[in-house]
Order: sequence, then C-alpha cells, then structure tokens
Amino acid sequence: MQRTALSSLGRRTAAPPISWLMEQTLRRPRLISLAAGFTDSATLPVADARALCRELFAKLTTGRAALQYGTTAGDPTLRQLTAERLGQMDWGLADRSVYAPERVLITHGSQQLLYLVTEALCDPGDIVLVEDPTYFVYLGIVQSRGLRARGIRLTANGLDLDALARVLASLRRSGELPRLKMMYLVSYHQNPTGVTTRFSQKQGVLRLLRACERAAGHPIYLVEDAAYRELRFAGAPERSALAAGADAAERVIYAGTYSKPFATGARVGFGLLPKPIFTVVLRLKGNHDFGTANLLQKLLARALASGRYVAHLAVLRRRYAAKARIMAAAMREHFPPQADVWSAEGGLYYWVRLPRKCKTGLRSKLFQHALRENVLYVPGALCYADDPTRPKSNHEMRLSFGGAKDAEIRAGIERLGAALRVTFEQ
Amino acid sequence: MQRTALSSLGRRTAAPPISWLMEQTLRRPRLISLAAGFTDSATLPVADARALCRELFAKLTTGRAALQYGTTAGDPTLRQLTAERLGQMDWGLADRSVYAPERVLITHGSQQLLYLVTEALCDPGDIVLVEDPTYFVYLGIVQSRGLRARGIRLTANGLDLDALARVLASLRRSGELPRLKMMYLVSYHQNPTGVTTRFSQKQGVLRLLRACERAAGHPIYLVEDAAYRELRFAGAPERSALAAGADAAERVIYAGTYSKPFATGARVGFGLLPKPIFTVVLRLKGNHDFGTANLLQKLLARALASGRYVAHLAVLRRRYAAKARIMAAAMREHFPPQADVWSAEGGLYYWVRLPRKCKTGLRSKLFQHALRENVLYVPGALCYADDPTRPKSNHEMRLSFGGAKDAEIRAGIERLGAALRVTFEQ
Repeated sequence: MQRTALSSLGRRTAAPPISWLMEQTLRRPRLISLAAGFTDSATLPVADARALCRELFAKLTTGRAALQYGTTAGDPTLRQLTAERLGQMDWGLADRSVYAPERVLITHGSQQLLYLVTEALCDPGDIVLVEDPTYFVYLGIVQSRGLRARGIRLTANGLDLDALARVLASLRRSGELPRLKMMYLVSYHQNPTGVTTRFSQKQGVLRLLRACERAAGHPIYLVEDAAYRELRFAGAPERSALAAGADAAERVIYAGTYSKPFATGARVGFGLLPKPIFTVVLRLKGNHDFGTANLLQKLLARALASGRYVAHLAVLRRRYAAKARIMAAAMREHFPPQADVWSAEGGLYYWVRLPRKCKTGLRSKLFQHALRENVLYVPGALCYADDPTRPKSNHEMRLSFGGAKDAEIRAGIERLGAALRVTFEQ
Repeated sequence: MQRTALSSLGRRTAAPPISWLMEQTLRRPRLISLAAGFTDSATLPVADARALCRELFAKLTTGRAALQYGTTAGDPTLRQLTAERLGQMDWGLADRSVYAPERVLITHGSQQLLYLVTEALCDPGDIVLVEDPTYFVYLGIVQSRGLRARGIRLTANGLDLDALARVLASLRRSGELPRLKMMYLVSYHQNPTGVTTRFSQKQGVLRLLRACERAAGHPIYLVEDAAYRELRFAGAPERSALAAGADAAERVIYAGTYSKPFATGARVGFGLLPKPIFTVVLRLKGNHDFGTANLLQKLLARALASGRYVAHLAVLRRRYAAKARIMAAAMREHFPPQADVWSAEGGLYYWVRLPRKCKTGLRSKLFQHALRENVLYVPGALCYADDPTRPKSNHEMRLSFGGAKDAEIRAGIERLGAALRVTFEQ
C-alpha cells in the first residue's frame, strides 16, 4: 500500500529517545543502569500490599467493591483522602474551596493526568513553557501533539523568574501570547535536576503568567507536577502553588501520584483542577478509559486510611537518603573536580554538569566509553525541549540512585568516573 | 476572563449522554437500573482475587515484580498467554505470525486501546464506519475527536454487508474514501444489541474494505471489538477476523479485555495489532501512561496460568445465562406483543424494538413514565452515531441484565411492561 492510514498525530509521534537506552539495558545483563527512573526494589511494600489485599478480599462487600467498575472521577474515599492530604501538606492553611474532593480526579498514574490536561488545553502549534531541563516523557507529549515548547532556565535554586519574564516579553512582542496555554513545572526534587522551586517562586510564576492573560485573551495555567514531592529526605517542606490562595488556585493544575511514594506497579495518580478544566478533563478521561482500575484505588485508599502509606513513606525516605549519600560519596571519590554535582534533597536523581567541551550525548566519546564500561546515564540533552530560540545544552547528565543497588551505585560511579577522567585527559 | 484556554478538542468534547442516566441512578435509591453496563456483582471473583494476591505477595520476588514498573507494551507472560489464548479461541488454526506475543499490547481496559487506535489513525474530519447501532462510549471518542461516522445497518443476523457495500459506494462516488480510515465492529454479543457478526461476514467486511484501498490510497482497518466474546452462554463459538489469514490480519486490529470476563475493577484489556500500527500505538501508550499497572497484569497472568480464569468464566457464563433467562421470561410475561425482543446468546444486553410510533428517547412519554416507575433503560437513539446521511432510529431500547439482581430484573421488567402498556394504549 502506498500511503499510510495514520493520523497527523500518529505520523508525527516519534519513538521516545529513552527507548534506545532501555534496549541497551535489556541487551547487556552486566550493565549498571544509572539511567532508569525505577524506584528502589528492596523497599517496595510487599508486606503492606499482602496485608491490604488480605483485608480487601476478606469480606465479600469490600472485595466486590474493589472488583467492580467505579466512576470516571475516581473512588470517593480516595478523592476525599487526597484532598485532605494535600491540604495538610500545604501546612494546614487549607482553603476548603481549593482542597475539595470534587476537584480531585484519580488517574492511571500522574502521567495520564499530564496527557489529559495537555489534550484539553493545547492545539498543535500552541506553546507550553517548560523548564530547561525538564522531564523528558512530558517532552514526548509535546512532540507528539505538535506543540511548541519554550525552555525557561532552571538554576540550582529553582526556576529563574527573570528568564521566565524575558520569554513572556518576547512572546508578547511577537504576538504569540494567544498561543501560550500553560507552563509545565516539575516543582519538587525535579526530574532530572533534583531542584525544588520554592513557593515564593511559584507565586512569582503565577503573577507573571496572570499579567499575560489580557494579551493572551484567555487563562494561562500553571501545571505543577509534584510527582517527587513526598520523596523529600532533607531540607524544609514547601507548599504547592495551590496555597497561593483561592483566586490564584483557579490557574493551578496540580498533578500528584501515589505510584512513586508507594508502589509504581500499583499506578494511581491524581490531579486537582480548577472546575472548568476538571469538567473537560473528566469527559476526556471518560473516553480514554472511563475510570482508573478500582482495585488499585481501593488499595491506595486503604493504605492511606490505615497509616501504612505514611509509615512506608518514612522507610522510603530513609532509603533514598542513604542511596543518595552513597552516590554522592562515590562521586566525590571518583569524579574529577570539574564535574559540578547539584545537590539533591529528595527525588531519585543527581544532575551533573561538566565543562562545556565535555559532551555527554549518545554519540559522545564519554557516553560510548561509559557504555563500554557497562554503565549507563541519561544524556542531559534528552531533557531539553526542542526550542529553536536557544541552543540545547549538551554537557550534562542525569544519574539515578532510584533503581540501582548500593553496590551497583558505587561500581557504576567508579566506572563513570574512569570514563570521565579519560575524556578529560583527551 | 473572556475566552477559554481550551483546545479545539477540549471545546468540542461533549458530556457523555449516559452521564445523565447515571446521575438519575445515584439520585433515586429505589431506582432499578436496567441501563448500567455493570457486571454481576455476586459472581465477582473475590475468593480468586484473595488467593491470587496471597500467592503474588507470598514471595518477595513475585511481590516486588508486581509492585515495580513494567514495560510500556506489557508483562511478557501476559502478552504470551494472551497470544496463545487468542490462537486457541480461533480454533487452533493459529497462524503463529498472527497470534504473536510481539503484536500484543496490554492496555488499561480495552477502551484505552480503542482510544489509542483512533488517535493513531484518525484526524478530525476523517470517517469511521460503525454499526447502526453501536457502543455509545465509542461514539464519545468519535464526537470528541471531530470524526465523521457512517452507520452500517446491523440486523439480528449480524452486519448487513449490502448496507456496507452501499455506504462504501457512496463514499467512492463522493470522493471521500481517502478520509475513511477504519470500520469499528463490536463483533460478539454486541453492545447494545446482543448480535454476533459471523466469521464469514467479517471476511466479507475485510474484502469490501480491501477493495476500497486503491481509491482510498491507504490501508483501511477493521477494528474488531471483542469485549463480550468470552461471555457466550449459548450458540456456537465464532472465530475472530484474525483467522482470515496472515494477509487479511494485516488489516485487523483486535481489541479484547479481561475486565468483563474476570473483574471490571482489575481493568486489563489488550490489543493485537499489525506491526506498523503496533509501533505507533505503543509510542502513544508511552505518552499516555508508559504502561498498564503491573500489579493488575501480574494478577491476570496468574489467573490465566492457574486455570482460575477459565474456571471463573464457566461460573460467569452460567450466571449470565440464568439472568438472561429471567429477563426473557419476564419480558414474555409483561411486555405487550408489539415489543420485538432480539435474542441474545451472550453478553449483558437485550435489545427491544418497539413500533415506530413508540418513541423511547429521554424526553419521550415512555421514558418519563418508566422513570416515575423507578426503572431505567438506555434509549436506543444514544447508540446511533451522528450520521447526517440517515435518520436516527428512536424506538428501541437497551436492557442490561448485567448488574441488576434477579428480583430487580423481574420487578424492573414488570414496571417497564406497565409503562409500555400505558404508552401503547395512548
């Protein structure tokens, strides 16, 4: 057959750049992957899941409820518990109109919420603002849906508001503000950098976006991806952008997840959305799958209500703190001093910046050397949006301490250090 | 704010017509719903789920695997078992190149597969062929994505191939074949009619579509939705369109599910797709959620491998057979002779055709009378696509024996019979 039957979206959607890395991992059994964003396997809550399932299926009533369809918006108890928990995490300054169960949508992981929200807001050619660098799976959505991304500089101290102001001013000058729909911000222990953008900075983002709405002719939303929020193991807690007040919260779409803090195999994410967006996203969710698997929702609701979730989280935080320390110590020992390692107070990642001449991309000497040494990292360039208004940075790497075992972290960093030294000496 | 930030898709997407019906159910606790497509609650496999979860979480290795991320395409064992099972269900005539695990994609219910496939193939304005009537949730996807539907007459004996030929001829004449991407066919115990389209008819569909490909300039796919295939309680089994041979199967996208035959709360569906479509749909799935919850997949794989799935299915079939008999007997007793009840050999539904003058829509006297009597049905018109080339039929109804209890089925049909008599006498 001559031509394809694919839609323009189907034709456009590229293979995720990360899939090549994943293939390498499967092909080389001795490979140490510091690339994968997997969570720590040894701390997965097997005993909790066993107990929760036993409880759930001990009675016919609760067992049947878990095995039957639920509603598209999600399990009422889980929505209630989620709204309460978010209110508490925002320091009890909870505005009940903001932290309301009716605004909570339960999704198949927070990734699904990101997809639904982007689908609801953005037409091909529309503009989304993202951090420079950002979560590369979200960039897959941007690419697939034909959106244009503008990268906003992220520093070790959070989002650069001056950079945001400059990009907004340039969009204003070029008359493109009407195409700007949202800013996507991974606000806690960011993937890939580990950076947390402070509450005051999020307030600043909301103010800057709001000031552009008149010229845009429509609301501009802040999509706050808080996937790593609960994986904090140092530093002080930060409020979400929802805490900026009921008025400001009308522009905040909060994406959260129970997958990473509890079990990635029991994918349950959620969103807290302004009413008009909630309505549309709920309809789209109805078309996607008319509701997240009830069994997973009942499991999570029970984990939250029983205190098992919070207890597990404490274990998890200690574990990631230990793994982060192991990686940091190994980097101090094995990395040349030119490697600039950003600090991490949570999440699963370290971000390492190398001198500009030291390229980290898939075809770079460093990457090839590391691969020969059987160690894998995520080249930083994969985390930068295709934004023609600025060059892509290509001398950084993301290192994950999430999935690898302690000994693998040490060995992986040692091998990577050797590869770095060879590269620097050339 | 003046204008909306919504995308054209977001603006276009309508509330599902069925949501009003669902609200009624929640508002009236004494209401008997013969509308909902829920599955039988009493037969949900609580004991099986209890045992399977106990096994799964008894060992750390299997427990951790269930609680960790999997791959986007799905659990290898479940993909293997699914391919094998499909091959067996197609009477062991399995062509290994067709029933191959590499062609199986595990999804969050079969609904997600339908969404992904439609997204991969259809641009706004593209044409999909659907049965007259068809599964109304799929019509929500069609509406939301701005597609045009053409309804193909469905008879009590399956899809009307002459009607299909006529619609294809008219598309050829109008030069619209290049916009035709797929036919969506609910081939087994169809929702809403209970009709099964025979294998020979599916072969006929494939031939007719193939004959249009030259004029279309691209492949035209048959999306076979086999959601109710395993809920057969009478009649002979039918092969899927995949059995039409390796060449024909290159045009078949098969959508199946483990949700309805096992547990709707453990949503696991799947697709078996031609390679080029598989590749694109896998990328889209990566953007949607990068993989179906591993816990659910491990549960289903274990249910299949242990024989619990098949054993449960036998129980389920007997149960639905009994509920269908109860509903049929009640309709014979209480419905006036003008009501033409189509037979059902499986699935969850009876389809009832009334004389043309007897309208069944939400604003009809019959529906209002039934609502006063606290009984709910799905008006037939909701199951017809918006196809301007033919009028919508509006004197039919879908009755579900899936969720209601035996006594509710009897009482519901009695009340509905009373409403019908009043309407007929007016």
